Amino acid sequence: MKDYITTDEWNIIEEGFNPDYHKISESLFSIGNGRMGQRANFEETYSGKTLQGNYIAGIYYPDKTRVGWWKNGYPEYFAKVLNACNWIALEIKVNNEIVDLSTSEVLSFKRILNMKEGYLERETLLRLNNGCVLEIKSTRFYSIVDDECGALKYQITAKNFDGIIHVKSILDGDVKNQDANYGDKFWTQVYQEQIKQQAILTLRTNKTEFDVCTGIETYLVLNGKALENTFEQIQKEKYLASSQTITVKAGDQLSVFKYAANISSENHSKENLVEVCKRTLKNIADKGFAKLLKEQADAWGLKWKTSDILIKGDAKAQQAIRFNIYHLYQTYTGKDVRLNIGPKGFTGEKYGGSTYWDTEAYCVPFYLSTAEQEVSRNLLIYRYRHLPKAIENAEKLGFKNGAALYPMVTMNGEECHNEWEITFEEIHRNGAIAYAIFNYIRYTGDKDYLVDYGLEVLIAIARFWSQRVNWSEQKKRFVILGVTGPNEYENNVNNNWYTNLIASWCLSYATEALAYVEEKAPHVYSALIAKTTFDKITETVRWNEIVENMYYPEDKDLGIVLQQDGYLDKEQMMVRDLDPKHYPIHQNWSWDRILRSCFIKQADVLQGMYFFEDNYDEETLRRNFDFYEARTIHESSLSPCVHSILAAKLGDEKRAYEFYLRTARLDLDDYNNDTQDGLHITSMAGTWMSVVEGFAGMRVRDGYLHFKPMLPEKWESYSFNILFRGFKLNVKVAHDYTIIQNHSIENIKLFVNGSPLLIKAESEKEILSLKKECI
Amino acid sequence: MKDYITTDEWNIIEEGFNPDYHKISESLFSIGNGRMGQRANFEETYSGKTLQGNYIAGIYYPDKTRVGWWKNGYPEYFAKVLNACNWIALEIKVNNEIVDLSTSEVLSFKRILNMKEGYLERETLLRLNNGCVLEIKSTRFYSIVDDECGALKYQITAKNFDGIIHVKSILDGDVKNQDANYGDKFWTQVYQEQIKQQAILTLRTNKTEFDVCTGIETYLVLNGKALENTFEQIQKEKYLASSQTITVKAGDQLSVFKYAANISSENHSKENLVEVCKRTLKNIADKGFAKLLKEQADAWGLKWKTSDILIKGDAKAQQAIRFNIYHLYQTYTGKDVRLNIGPKGFTGEKYGGSTYWDTEAYCVPFYLSTAEQEVSRNLLIYRYRHLPKAIENAEKLGFKNGAALYPMVTMNGEECHNEWEITFEEIHRNGAIAYAIFNYIRYTGDKDYLVDYGLEVLIAIARFWSQRVNWSEQKKRFVILGVTGPNEYENNVNNNWYTNLIASWCLSYATEALAYVEEKAPHVYSALIAKTTFDKITETVRWNEIVENMYYPEDKDLGIVLQQDGYLDKEQMMVRDLDPKHYPIHQNWSWDRILRSCFIKQADVLQGMYFFEDNYDEETLRRNFDFYEARTIHESSLSPCVHSILAAKLGDEKRAYEFYLRTARLDLDDYNNDTQDGLHITSMAGTWMSVVEGFAGMRVRDGYLHFKPMLPEKWESYSFNILFRGFKLNVKVAHDYTIIQNHSIENIKLFVNGSPLLIKAESEKEILSLKKECI
Repeated sequence: MKDYITTDEWNIIEEGFNPDYHKISESLFSIGNGRMGQRANFEETYSGKTLQGNYIAGIYYPDKTRVGWWKNGYPEYFAKVLNACNWIALEIKVNNEIVDLSTSEVLSFKRILNMKEGYLERETLLRLNNGCVLEIKSTRFYSIVDDECGALKYQITAKNFDGIIHVKSILDGDVKNQDANYGDKFWTQVYQEQIKQQAILTLRTNKTEFDVCTGIETYLVLNGKALENTFEQIQKEKYLASSQTITVKAGDQLSVFKYAANISSENHSKENLVEVCKRTLKNIADKGFAKLLKEQADAWGLKWKTSDILIKGDAKAQQAIRFNIYHLYQTYTGKDVRLNIGPKGFTGEKYGGSTYWDTEAYCVPFYLSTAEQEVSRNLLIYRYRHLPKAIENAEKLGFKNGAALYPMVTMNGEECHNEWEITFEEIHRNGAIAYAIFNYIRYTGDKDYLVDYGLEVLIAIARFWSQRVNWSEQKKRFVILGVTGPNEYENNVNNNWYTNLIASWCLSYATEALAYVEEKAPHVYSALIAKTTFDKITETVRWNEIVENMYYPEDKDLGIVLQQDGYLDKEQMMVRDLDPKHYPIHQNWSWDRILRSCFIKQADVLQGMYFFEDNYDEETLRRNFDFYEARTIHESSLSPCVHSILAAKLGDEKRAYEFYLRTARLDLDDYNNDTQDGLHITSMAGTWMSVVEGFAGMRVRDGYLHFKPMLPEKWESYSFNILFRGFKLNVKVAHDYTIIQNHSIENIKLFVNGSPLLIKAESEKEILSLKKECI
Repeated sequence: MKDYITTDEWNIIEEGFNPDYHKISESLFSIGNGRMGQRANFEETYSGKTLQGNYIAGIYYPDKTRVGWWKNGYPEYFAKVLNACNWIALEIKVNNEIVDLSTSEVLSFKRILNMKEGYLERETLLRLNNGCVLEIKSTRFYSIVDDECGALKYQITAKNFDGIIHVKSILDGDVKNQDANYGDKFWTQVYQEQIKQQAILTLRTNKTEFDVCTGIETYLVLNGKALENTFEQIQKEKYLASSQTITVKAGDQLSVFKYAANISSENHSKENLVEVCKRTLKNIADKGFAKLLKEQADAWGLKWKTSDILIKGDAKAQQAIRFNIYHLYQTYTGKDVRLNIGPKGFTGEKYGGSTYWDTEAYCVPFYLSTAEQEVSRNLLIYRYRHLPKAIENAEKLGFKNGAALYPMVTMNGEECHNEWEITFEEIHRNGAIAYAIFNYIRYTGDKDYLVDYGLEVLIAIARFWSQRVNWSEQKKRFVILGVTGPNEYENNVNNNWYTNLIASWCLSYATEALAYVEEKAPHVYSALIAKTTFDKITETVRWNEIVENMYYPEDKDLGIVLQQDGYLDKEQMMVRDLDPKHYPIHQNWSWDRILRSCFIKQADVLQGMYFFEDNYDEETLRRNFDFYEARTIHESSLSPCVHSILAAKLGDEKRAYEFYLRTARLDLDDYNNDTQDGLHITSMAGTWMSVVEGFAGMRVRDGYLHFKPMLPEKWESYSFNILFRGFKLNVKVAHDYTIIQNHSIENIKLFVNGSPLLIKAESEKEILSLKKECI
């Protein structure tokens, strides 16, 4: 755990330069706009440790699967998130010395991610080896208004010298991934052009043949006066640069403006890329930096209006929740149904693929409440579009009759992760995809979704489960053998409780969905039955048999369910008794030791009790919570939020708050010692859930919103906005009261602490808290 | 399964050329001499499918481990068996057309592996596209007399043409591995020299920096008359060739003689390699091909004298057993304590590493009975020498206090296999290494081995087990969680019966060994206690506690032990009910399906009952055999032999014979559809065991040999030689009698069917069989 970020409500701030933290900061200060993004790499030369990263949504490379022992069913490739063309790069020479923070004396340094207005800023004062002292101030952003564009202002002030500054403005497509196993080249040059201040490069990914045309325009300004362009041009394969020498005197300020456009063949025809790129460049260069930045700030202002969470009395918590919301909206805006939410977003290359079950389990609730219904619906349709691939994927593993197994990791619907214990065994993901349909409909009331898309997916998923279980003669129950549950610190276990539970639930829900569609849309139903050659009698009878006879491991003495068969054979250790020098165990323990220890990477049983909370009374939940919480080491970013929500539900404010801080500041404080690889984007939605579902206790039951607010002792209050079935609400929770504002043109009925409440249009209600003292 | 090899008692014969089987034949017809070997690649150009392979014992390349998700404890590299310099290569042009079986019309073709005399022969008649018909006859071998040498005679007869023949004699070090994941180059040139008929190349492996100097001398002979050398020389990086043009008339015979020496820095100092190479070349060229071949035949004659098994009445079985024995002695001769028995020997590059538990479990018994005691002792000392590395290996996984985990796969003692479920979990290998010590001493009576080497290894292994178990509060027993047993079609299981059994046995045996050494060699004992900082009281008390309280899964109703916890939750299918189109399942089923099926890759419970047979009465063995045999799919080459031995023990001659044929002809008939990758060398020892321990029922009890002979109905008789504690015996089993000859200078007491028998020196005894009718 690290603690070097300055606390501030609207900004992420790093003061003073520590090269050891630079890669962490490169992740934290990343910028993006849902279409593309980049790590907070320095613009100028930096010879210290760095992870260079520029990423474009939907663009990947299919890295060939290479394993020691090929196992039938492995996907052929792993979808590598590709480091793309670098348009921010500058080489600055001052009196012939290259400016490089790694070789100079850094006199002062400040890096700011301005979340309110959506840009990255850096101020550096440094002394070169030749004695020249200069100040660098850079500001850059990816526009969420013109989402194919970025802009950079880079200002150099000569503090103590007269002399010459060489500026080389670079467009560098000769980039690689840090994890480039096989010396593969990922990009090939298709086109290059350089005229005056403009440079254009079109690069093509090998194998996948995505084309991306990146263009820049560079302008130089000295003391506020535009300089004539006398660039010397440098052209190499996949690389263009323009170099100019400027004579300065002490006190002079030289500004470099770079405008960039990334135009991808995912959005335009290949023949037009260069033309579109030039047009886009002209458009933004004409607007100019200041106007672009103003538009950016305004657009972010609107986003914050619907999605902000305000926390009073705890600046660290305030900073953290905004950090999470900000990065979620930098990653995914819901505009494009082909895109999804990669686990590292645009902040790193690790893991690969863009879509995990994280989306359905964690992100859908966030977008349901903070964005138009269309956004979460798009996330669901994304999976509907991949259904044929999910059926193919199941067929590769020997399943039949239209059974679908959604991929663990994907870019285009095909499985692209190649660890057998994950790809083949972490099948509970299928359940989360079904659950998201249920959850979306519960929240929105949009039952038409079942008719239009949902049922077809549910049938295919149910078919998978009905083939994946087997009857145990020994147990006289249906069992599910050889799985990896949400707790990935166990592999190939039998009867993972969560997996058995969600499998059975999928079968029930598919049966319900069938009945609903049959009744409400008989023509659609008939067509679907024909399309899927569904044999209602045989198939639903089997589904029902499985539901009725599913095996669930449990320990009656302890009054808990068992994460999987044999869990109690493990040496029962408590996380609190583990010397922290072992953290994180995945970096310190061998895999076999992790597997046979009782430590749990992430909520597993508790994930199930969170999803299906109505099935468990408070005492059952408490026993299971106490048992599993003590054994959970939270080395998955997706874990603490579930614990926080359940602790809140159990009225355990202290632990709810602890887990909240852990989820909210996971990256800011680098809890798991891996922020340098990129941020944990999908878990950020869990942070939001910790506040809204956890502290505020928000649920939807029978079409009504319910709240059961609590407030961490340290906080004065928190408030958030919610979009719900056309209503706009603001909920503010303080120690003495909760106020709910209805900013809608209709009255809303909802429940607070179980009591119904009618809030008229454009008005608010205040509910006084039961003081603790009074209880 | 394929059936294209002509049955013959002393030869492996392929008649007619089928390119689809060429890679299989390249494996089957491989030659080697324990120091080096090669696949039966064609000498001349071949543009069809081939797996090129020249291998040198002990020479490997450390391929970097690359996995999707790095797990702490992974070894840094995988030891790749390296394809080395090709010295047999020729390019033959006839009237300017390159001779290539893939582009010519093959009129006749015969390939023979002469096992009696130890050479490979091929006769080919072919018509080129230009109409020229020629006959090629090639003979080559690796000498077991001069074990750094090989020789080739290649004769071309012009059948129907006058014209010119170009001969290019090639020494090609610019070779690669088929499985070269990363485009890596494995060899760098250190030296080259070419003078007259001689070419010398010294190549160095990257990273490991082994130097191998390969030299050739080429001589041309036309119609029995040596031709003057007028070679044109061609020199490239890692490649030397000599080219000469010969004018021939129809009926002429041109012979090319190539002599080769492979001189490795494992055996000579790097500075001397070239000199040694030249001296060696001179030596063999002076001897000449005919004399070398005669010496080879004589030396193989001697090997067969002690190791042959003679089977009358079943030529297929006879051919097969010799094929197995022959390849074992081509792979390992026991001369060099640094070498071991790679699973593919010198016949393929697959798997990597040279040493698996196969050596201890299968090969040691073979060498114990057919070679001088020194040979099996060397195999044991090999592991003793690796003890420090095994302790390091265990430390990497978090074990302490001198606990050793021997590697699953190794070249030099370090683990070099990188699949977590194998490397980290297939820990039963430690047991086989301890068992080999026990087995060696049981056979030889050499208890001094315990004092000199054995105890130190046993202590380290026992320490591993005592740390690897854990106490289950649930079961009130010690359990072993998260292992892979011999049945590799299960991963990460709990309480694999075999593993628990051999772990417990190791602890008992180490305790016994301690007591023995303490009594017999107190000074050695004290020194060892000091060296290992052994705490006798604490450690042996713990060992004993574990032995007394080990958990063994069983099913009382079925009266069987359970392969592992939960085995009976699987759908119980019989292999006989599986449609053979699924064979082999590892090529047709996805890994998860294999893992959750009940099918067993190789003997697991039965392996344990084979090792510790005295613990199980016949009925227990029968119940377990019947249960597990029905579920075993034998997709490991190491499986059928154990089943054959146990079937024989149970008097089930039919099944014993079936399993024998399966183990003996595994490669010849390509049972598992993978012979093209190389032969299953280590399992060949299992074939020998099937005859000697299976059919002849040979055991050693209390220092005496026991036999309980049976004879497969189809056979007239079989006989074999045995070396035992200085005695040389021949055992012949026919339907009516068994004859045991004592070719020793002392009398021997042994047991046949439980009855003691004294056989005087240099005499024999005949035991009449109880006829079946009489029973």
